[in-house]
Amino acid sequence: MKVLVTGGTGFIGSRLVKALLDRGRVHDIDDKEREITGVRIADVTQPQQPLPEDERLETIYGDFSEPGAAEQLLSEDTGVVFHLAAIVSGQAEQEFDLGMRINLDGTRRLLEASRSLKKPPRFVFSSSVAVYGGDMPGVIEDNTPTTPQTSYGSQKAGSELLVADYSRKGFVDGRSLRLPTIIVRPGKPNAAASSFASSVLREPLQGQEVICPVADTTGVWALSPRKVVDCFLRAAELPTDAWGMNRSLCLPGITVTVAEMMNALREIGGEGVAARVRFEPDPFIEKIVYGWPTRFSPKRCIGMGFKADNDIREIVEGFIDDYLGGEFVH
Amino acid sequence: MKVLVTGGTGFIGSRLVKALLDRGRVHDIDDKEREITGVRIADVTQPQQPLPEDERLETIYGDFSEPGAAEQLLSEDTGVVFHLAAIVSGQAEQEFDLGMRINLDGTRRLLEASRSLKKPPRFVFSSSVAVYGGDMPGVIEDNTPTTPQTSYGSQKAGSELLVADYSRKGFVDGRSLRLPTIIVRPGKPNAAASSFASSVLREPLQGQEVICPVADTTGVWALSPRKVVDCFLRAAELPTDAWGMNRSLCLPGITVTVAEMMNALREIGGEGVAARVRFEPDPFIEKIVYGWPTRFSPKRCIGMGFKADNDIREIVEGFIDDYLGGEFVH
Repeated sequence: MKVLVTGGTGFIGSRLVKALLDRGRVHDIDDKEREITGVRIADVTQPQQPLPEDERLETIYGDFSEPGAAEQLLSEDTGVVFHLAAIVSGQAEQEFDLGMRINLDGTRRLLEASRSLKKPPRFVFSSSVAVYGGDMPGVIEDNTPTTPQTSYGSQKAGSELLVADYSRKGFVDGRSLRLPTIIVRPGKPNAAASSFASSVLREPLQGQEVICPVADTTGVWALSPRKVVDCFLRAAELPTDAWGMNRSLCLPGITVTVAEMMNALREIGGEGVAARVRFEPDPFIEKIVYGWPTRFSPKRCIGMGFKADNDIREIVEGFIDDYLGGEFVH
Repeated sequence: MKVLVTGGTGFIGSRLVKALLDRGRVHDIDDKEREITGVRIADVTQPQQPLPEDERLETIYGDFSEPGAAEQLLSEDTGVVFHLAAIVSGQAEQEFDLGMRINLDGTRRLLEASRSLKKPPRFVFSSSVAVYGGDMPGVIEDNTPTTPQTSYGSQKAGSELLVADYSRKGFVDGRSLRLPTIIVRPGKPNAAASSFASSVLREPLQGQEVICPVADTTGVWALSPRKVVDCFLRAAELPTDAWGMNRSLCLPGITVTVAEMMNALREIGGEGVAARVRFEPDPFIEKIVYGWPTRFSPKRCIGMGFKADNDIREIVEGFIDDYLGGEFVH
């Protein structure tokens, strides 16, 4: 059975691809565990890290949202689709039409292509806590309504509706995961408004100064790359019955303030590492980030076997191990 | 200033058009009351009732969801759009692609056409309580999440997201109204799953037998044609500030069971009129209708000046006055 991973060259996608290849098996819509005979990556960008050398792996570069493109990515033996490709929050806010085309129309085209298969694939969609916004309660719970206040969040919420209705109609077997901010992201800063949440940890550990565009009291609802990959795999293996009438799920995470990130840097690396962060507020970033919820109490995902990190220190140490070869610059 | 009413030949749309012409004035995005110099109806079907003879009225027949069509409906002096056109619930469930095209893509095309105007129009969208579904609380409140379990409800919820984001971006000044079941609808039964809620009152009052496809314990959240038109006008006249960060609003209504409708028929017309209703369950209709919420406590709309009917008897008497010339068949 084949697996498609859109956005598979990204930092989450490439970890997911490696995990799928390592595991070698995945569940299909019949709740049967099948051997993975091929993993197809669809992405527009070259991987930042080399992809695994594996004859089961195929990478297709191109825009999956173009008419007819999604159909080319799927074949009758595609059993699972992991849809991670997206225009990130900051860019979707500044380039509205591009965000609509990739984040909303693109998801729909993938769902339509999936619908055309004889056997509907399991469809795991990477949504976001950006679906929340506006007048929110102090703590987000499983039944908090989605009232996004960004185009990115709106496109993710709209895609969730599509995933849910296509699932209800039997066109796919969908699951939408509302991802926390994933830290520590390796590589360079990107156009996501949440980019700072990785930068303030990543750059100092590599001896570089970094500007934090938000106050140190700013919190984020965070999950590590290790754990989010576990969540994607868990989402794909859960039987259809486990989702009931609600195909959207808030993932677990931990609430971490920038000040707590600084403390973790100090504990692990000393004052010199933490001192590499300078605070210079950026109103554009602040406006987006301050609209995001930071405190959650997602009970449903815990009951379904999804797991968060224990604390920010564990997340930082995982980054040092996975991406810095166990070493950092004192 | 011009006003566009999509679905304007329908029973709600045509009442709204008449009310707009009678009133002669409507508020624009600057919260200024302007004279209505023209009302344009866009619809695919001929009106069941004759439209008013009025030189300000223009009717354009055609599918507004076709590429380029929406732009033809708007002009630079269009100040308010009332978007009522839709594929109804039963048909959208059976003809998925048609529902997606009209209910979701069509709304987006109208929003896009509105965005292209120099001065963004006020945009009042006819949504539905079908956005609720699945695992709901016993009473729907303003902050109940939308988890639709029909394609119609999903398309309405998706359109609300678009209206909200296009408003946030300043492309339109949108307001989405979640309509209760509007009874008593004149004319003939239609493909809406809620069609029975009008039929069981309408046909007996005209001396005809009717089949009710659901049990008499079935409740509906109801509003009259008179009151829903008042709600559309109220939605258009409220200043932008009144909506805050949430452009979607649950309208007021009353909860009425079919048994209570039968009682109203008995009170007004006697046992003979009520005896014209025969109960024959239809599983297709039941499945859709039983998934709809019937009990609501929408506080926000009350504070914003929207009003429901007092009781089912008032609704039935309004129907007899407005559509049967004050007479019914004993």
